[in-house]
This record gives sequence, structure tokens and C-alpha cells, in this order.
Amino acid sequence: MTGRPPAGSGSGTAARRRGRPPRTESADTRDRILTAARDEFSERGYEKTSVRGIAKSAGVDPALVHHYFGTKEQVFEAAITLSFGPALQAPKAIEEGPLDGVGERLARFFFGVWENPATRAPLLAIVRSALTNETAAAVFRRIIATQVLRRIAVRLELPDAELRAELAAAQLVGTAILRYVLKIEPLASADPEQVIARLAPVVQGHLTDP
Amino acid sequence: MTGRPPAGSGSGTAARRRGRPPRTESADTRDRILTAARDEFSERGYEKTSVRGIAKSAGVDPALVHHYFGTKEQVFEAAITLSFGPALQAPKAIEEGPLDGVGERLARFFFGVWENPATRAPLLAIVRSALTNETAAAVFRRIIATQVLRRIAVRLELPDAELRAELAAAQLVGTAILRYVLKIEPLASADPEQVIARLAPVVQGHLTDP
Repeated sequence: MTGRPPAGSGSGTAARRRGRPPRTESADTRDRILTAARDEFSERGYEKTSVRGIAKSAGVDPALVHHYFGTKEQVFEAAITLSFGPALQAPKAIEEGPLDGVGERLARFFFGVWENPATRAPLLAIVRSALTNETAAAVFRRIIATQVLRRIAVRLELPDAELRAELAAAQLVGTAILRYVLKIEPLASADPEQVIARLAPVVQGHLTDP
Repeated sequence: MTGRPPAGSGSGTAARRRGRPPRTESADTRDRILTAARDEFSERGYEKTSVRGIAKSAGVDPALVHHYFGTKEQVFEAAITLSFGPALQAPKAIEEGPLDGVGERLARFFFGVWENPATRAPLLAIVRSALTNETAAAVFRRIIATQVLRRIAVRLELPDAELRAELAAAQLVGTAILRYVLKIEPLASADPEQVIARLAPVVQGHLTDP
């Protein structure tokens, strides 16, 4: 919507282009905008959030939001990457250690992120946005494809690795939705260890069964 | 919000109370309101839908909406029951036939509903409402608990039957979200038969494995 998008947006590290303000001040401003963006998207959802609202909340001019991040869609992508920071480490649970225990490592990692209220709230908000807005879904899809699925596929070394990873993710995501969003009992109050014990073999099966 | 709720709302069959207008005309009006409600909730989501808007779309006085269904929450419950009509038949897939093939019957039933565009659209809309609004989630939760989980639990005759049913549902619901809502590839374009073949043993395992 607003002209040239900056290159490399959403990587989370491609900050400080052009370097107009002094370096550290610039990084501070960028971080402040990003935090404000995450909070605005979390509270209002994708549709009701505006670049102007983010700028106001960060105490900067809207032009500066565009300067650092580009369009609203690109601010959202950067905010997702920030909110999903912990969740995007999922491939590590697969990469580190033998394939044998990957189901349990992944299930344990997943519930570790969701059981922590500090990481759950922004995650939940972003997931809600992605479930109700097509642009948000597209951004979410792109991040999952490039930052999660591709890495898992590389590790599995199977031709249908991405489909496998998605069906495993479906089990985990579906469980999170029933447990944390819809809060359906008895799953909502079940001991996380009990849930992990049931899901680990399923995730393992999806990823490595012949 | 609007005084005495009618008893038995949401059952989908408990129509025509008091019988003020002639019987058939009354049933027609009720159906017209219910269809309008489903369409309004589908298009606008729970929060943005109003009883007044439903009445306008059905061409009746708002008082008549309250007369037949009660509060907005109760209209929503009736609309969910209508939209979920096909999906609420899931327990039948468990009840009819041996427990051996229940995983495949359930997976096949589930994708039958979701692959059909006529049933998918209202289903998707209701799920979106439930995922983004707490009142809508509560209504959804109540329907799932009373109309789906209890019946499945009765059939399984296991002490942890409801948790089993929920973890099986989580696999199916998660797959629907990745495939139909987020449209993550390759799952979004995968042959339904291939997906059913992979999910059937997982659903079966959740429900009947020792």
C-alpha cells in the first residue's frame, strides 16, 4: 500500500537500513515500534490494527513505521516473527538429537511454549489473526513454510517430509486449539505430561513411520 | 440480555412454542430467522452480528427473533446446531459398525463434511467465531460436550474415553485448520484419500489403543 517495501523485512535481524539516525537510537526506535506492533496486533487482531495506531502507541510518526518495516503486512510479518520467536525454534527440537526421540522432543517443546503464559498470549493472538484474515494467513503460511517446514524436511530426508511435518503439526496445533482456545474438558485441565505422553508417539509416527 | 430465554433452544427441533401464529406459518418464520442467523454469523462473525441485523435480514421484527430463540447467544447456539448439522453426526460414524474400523470411518466422515463446499463454508464461519469470541467458544464447547463427546464416550466404554476422543478430534481439527484455513502446502492440495489413509490409524490409536 505504501510504496517500496524494504528488503529482508521479517527476518528479525535485517534492521537499521540507511542508518539515518545514530545506530543505537535507531535500533531502539525499531524495537519500540516492533513491540508496539506486536501488542496492537495481539489486542486488536490484524484487521483492526493500523500503521497509524502502531505509530501512536510507539510514540513515533507513521512514516517511521513505514521506513523501518514497509507496509502493514510487513509490520505484521515482523511482529509474527517476534511473537513466534520461541515457537520458530521448533526445528531445533528435531535437528538436535537422534530421530528416535523426535516425537517426544517436539511435543515437549510445543507444550513448553504453550504452557508458558508469557509466550502463549502473543502466540494465541497471532494465531487468531491468521485464522480470521486472509492476508494474515498468507504471512503466517510463508513464515511456517520457510522457517519451519523446510528445516524439518531437510532433517527427515524423506520425499514426503513436508506432508509428514504438517500432519504432525496438525496434531499439536489441534490439541492447542482444543486445550487453550476452546478449553474443552477434560483436555483443557489434563496434566501436560499426560498429554505429551499420548502425543509423542503420534508425532513420531507421522515423522518417521515407513 | 432480553428476558426469559425459551426452554430447549438450540436443539434444532424444539420449534413452535406457544403457537401464536398458525402452526406452519410459524415454522416457516422460525426457519427463515434461523437461516438468516446462520448467514449473518457466517458473514460477520459472532461479535459483529446483532439480533436486529438478523431480524432485518429475515424481514421480521426483532421481537420475533427473541420470541423464537431468546438471546443472541441462544440464536447463535441454534445457528451452530444448524451449521454443524452434518458434523454433529460424527458419533454415528463411531456407533455404527465395529470399533476396529472406527478410525477410518471417522476420518472419512470428517473429510466428507469438509470437502463439500456447501457444508464447509458455514462450518468454517462458526469455527472462526468460536476461535475469536469467548461467548461463541462457550456455546461451541457446550454443543461439542453434550452432542459429540458424550456419545463417543458411551460407545468406547473406557474411563478416559473423552480425553481419547478429544485427542483424536485434535488431529482432525488441526488438519482441517492447516488444510482449509491456513492452506499450508503440500497438505492443502493433497489427495483427501492420502490424508485419510494417514490419519485413520492415528484416530484409531487415540480411541482404542491400550
